[in-house]
Amino acid sequence: NKHQTKDAHANRGMTLEKDINETNHYYLESEQAVIHKKPTPVQVVNVDYPKRSAAVIKEAYYQKPSTTDFNGLYRGYHIDFEAKETKNKQSIPLSNIHDHQVEHMKRIDKHGGITFFIIRFSKMETTYLLPLQPFLKMWEAQQNGGRKSIPHDYIAENGYVIPFRLQAKVDYLKVVDDVFINGGEIT
Amino acid sequence: NKHQTKDAHANRGMTLEKDINETNHYYLESEQAVIHKKPTPVQVVNVDYPKRSAAVIKEAYYQKPSTTDFNGLYRGYHIDFEAKETKNKQSIPLSNIHDHQVEHMKRIDKHGGITFFIIRFSKMETTYLLPLQPFLKMWEAQQNGGRKSIPHDYIAENGYVIPFRLQAKVDYLKVVDDVFINGGEIT
Ligand SMILES: [Mg+2]
Ligand SMILES: [Mg+2]
Repeated sequence: NKHQTKDAHANRGMTLEKDINETNHYYLESEQAVIHKKPTPVQVVNVDYPKRSAAVIKEAYYQKPSTTDFNGLYRGYHIDFEAKETKNKQSIPLSNIHDHQVEHMKRIDKHGGITFFIIRFSKMETTYLLPLQPFLKMWEAQQNGGRKSIPHDYIAENGYVIPFRLQAKVDYLKVVDDVFINGGEIT
Repeated sequence: NKHQTKDAHANRGMTLEKDINETNHYYLESEQAVIHKKPTPVQVVNVDYPKRSAAVIKEAYYQKPSTTDFNGLYRGYHIDFEAKETKNKQSIPLSNIHDHQVEHMKRIDKHGGITFFIIRFSKMETTYLLPLQPFLKMWEAQQNGGRKSIPHDYIAENGYVIPFRLQAKVDYLKVVDDVFINGGEIT
């Protein structure tokens, strides 16, 4: 199969992303929500245009995403979130979250959208929804010299366990209902 | 400049897209809305990982986008639209609009989002916002053997001219306010 991927970059942290993609597909098919993974931005430098066949990109580079992994629409609400997975047991590092991603999420919050992190501790098989506000406390503490990771305990206390269902392995809309829509964070 | 693009594909219909990107940047900076171009999806087949430097994508292919060009958040509303430009004077062809893009837009409409086309007749320097409903009439007619393009006249009658401003060359949020939010299409 010529199109088989050899792309380790794209496969990093693949399990959570794959589970969310499948969940989103289920949400789409069951007409609950329209939420998609944004494509990874790529800067194309060189392309071949062979006769009678598809253009072949010959040189390109991954770009840092300026926003988040996923966005879409649920019950009239704009949904925007970032997914992070770690093999650590005690904490998740803040190092691979970018400043402009956090700025983006602050904007989403300000303009009336629903924004959060989905964080998986893969060794414990536990996945949380962590709203932006408790995340920001740790993020801002880090910027003032605080710890460079968020403890699992903090996430367990300030986040919400996302239920696993066979059809929706990361059934996060259940939590969105409870926390943001019925819970009154969004009015 | 090594990163200079030779990418004709990416430059196709570049003027409208560039003007919308600039407009979105202005909307973002002036805190009016958070709307971004979605990256073009690319299927990566082969990547080099040189020591001490960035991964180089050596073989990749453009994929058909399964959704639309732009989405985001405005005054709490989910916004999702497709931009099309033509050098024709009389009509815009339906040929480069994909079935799954239209299906996507129907879903956005159904779930309470605001969705539309931005269509530019570049020779006349006129840009319209065409809501989904009048577009669908022409789209469905085409599927039943009707014409394969939308006449300029039809767009002028059923769409709305988007004002040009120096800072917001395609000031479409003005039209979104009038048509969808204050105009009662969204309640
Ligand atoms: Mg991620
Ligand atoms: Mg387009």
